[in-house]
Amino acid sequence: MNLLLLEPNEIKSDGTVCLRDRRSRHIVRILGLGPGDTVKTGIINGSTGRGEIVSVRGSDRNPEVVLRFFTGDRLPELPPVDLVMGLVRPIMLKRILAQAASLGVGRIYLINGSRVEKSFFEASLLKEDNYRSYLLQGLEQAKDTFLPQVSIHARFRPFVEDFIPTVAQNYSGLLGAHPEGGLNIRDSIGPGFAGRILLAVGPEGGWVEFDLEKFAAQSFRPVSLGRRVLRTDTAVVALLAQLMLLREERGRDGTPVPAVGSG
Amino acid sequence: MNLLLLEPNEIKSDGTVCLRDRRSRHIVRILGLGPGDTVKTGIINGSTGRGEIVSVRGSDRNPEVVLRFFTGDRLPELPPVDLVMGLVRPIMLKRILAQAASLGVGRIYLINGSRVEKSFFEASLLKEDNYRSYLLQGLEQAKDTFLPQVSIHARFRPFVEDFIPTVAQNYSGLLGAHPEGGLNIRDSIGPGFAGRILLAVGPEGGWVEFDLEKFAAQSFRPVSLGRRVLRTDTAVVALLAQLMLLREERGRDGTPVPAVGSG
Repeated sequence: MNLLLLEPNEIKSDGTVCLRDRRSRHIVRILGLGPGDTVKTGIINGSTGRGEIVSVRGSDRNPEVVLRFFTGDRLPELPPVDLVMGLVRPIMLKRILAQAASLGVGRIYLINGSRVEKSFFEASLLKEDNYRSYLLQGLEQAKDTFLPQVSIHARFRPFVEDFIPTVAQNYSGLLGAHPEGGLNIRDSIGPGFAGRILLAVGPEGGWVEFDLEKFAAQSFRPVSLGRRVLRTDTAVVALLAQLMLLREERGRDGTPVPAVGSG
Repeated sequence: MNLLLLEPNEIKSDGTVCLRDRRSRHIVRILGLGPGDTVKTGIINGSTGRGEIVSVRGSDRNPEVVLRFFTGDRLPELPPVDLVMGLVRPIMLKRILAQAASLGVGRIYLINGSRVEKSFFEASLLKEDNYRSYLLQGLEQAKDTFLPQVSIHARFRPFVEDFIPTVAQNYSGLLGAHPEGGLNIRDSIGPGFAGRILLAVGPEGGWVEFDLEKFAAQSFRPVSLGRRVLRTDTAVVALLAQLMLLREERGRDGTPVPAVGSG
């Protein structure tokens, strides 16, 4: 835990918050902190600042920690990528949610596809109370407070054909991971990379031709990680990391870097 | 399993191989194949080709499959990256081994560090018979046959101070992941990126200042993934994916792409 996260409604009007859960245990038992110490603290979807420990009471096993939150300047930025993903096994989904949150995504659309196991939509993990903790793990790791919004779409065609057109104008590029797609993400995005990206990654087993045609009809461009076929969890992290690098390329002086070969 | 992997010594002089393990079960029960069908097949550290099923015998539960291997042209390439990693918990190590193999690495050095839990070196996973299956999983996924070589180094300073100097000349760059390192991997590598890279990623909890100084003394350059602090497994995949993208940049016409801002 590199950042202690608070719910906005946990903070009382006097600026203090009383913790008696895994967070207070972490403060006392792992970090070994006590009154007067401070811990890097953030409010979910709010600012990052510091928490000053006012008091520690109760047993070491289950301590109650009161801390006062001092807000910092930094508000979270909306991450530049949203993710569409074919629904995967719960055990893999937990990991992907934490990793995607740690890398920074705005929204996560969990969708159906020809090769999605239909029973996955019944998983209890898909309840917000359950998946939320994995997103928070990722934020605590990465010291971010922006909580990705997750939505679940059990019908493939209405999502791609009806919903995507309603949000497509919010993105400067729609990309679909495709092992045989040909272009790497840099060449696929091209020289005009700015704004937000919607990235679609297939379920375990990948998209089938039917799925890919539907994405293509909505102007998703195929991106490839080379001839290696990667597992969904690997592909999500790999593509988010590559997008992060591409964004830094244009960050220096604000102008886009020309695509290789375009000049 | 996107590629069926065979041990070189499994193939008889007549070109056939007899399987009665998870591979034969996969062929019969998952892929539903029978005599005359072919399956994409490779030899570990050897060529990729196809396997033609000669016969299927025994129960569906535990079938025996005989196939004949036809070699293809493609021999594996030595991946352009070797990985140094602070040893992590076995459960995370399994995942990293599979993911690193799927992305392609030549060697994996599992090393000590100030924040490495010493008991991890006792894990049974560190026996070759045990970790090898996770590497193979990654190769089967990515359709590669190059098996990364793993070695374990329980003493930090001899590895960094004595061993690294003996291999450093094999690399065009030594990179060390460092959340507060400043430069992204593209700027850190600079315009002359060619040849092989040695990438060091910290254990859970990261490197401490002492560790970082020792790496710096061996000319490791710090690379950062931005101000986000990532878990070891996420950082390994993210950095390997970024290196993959950088390599493609220079792949087009063989000349290095100038670093941003250098021209």
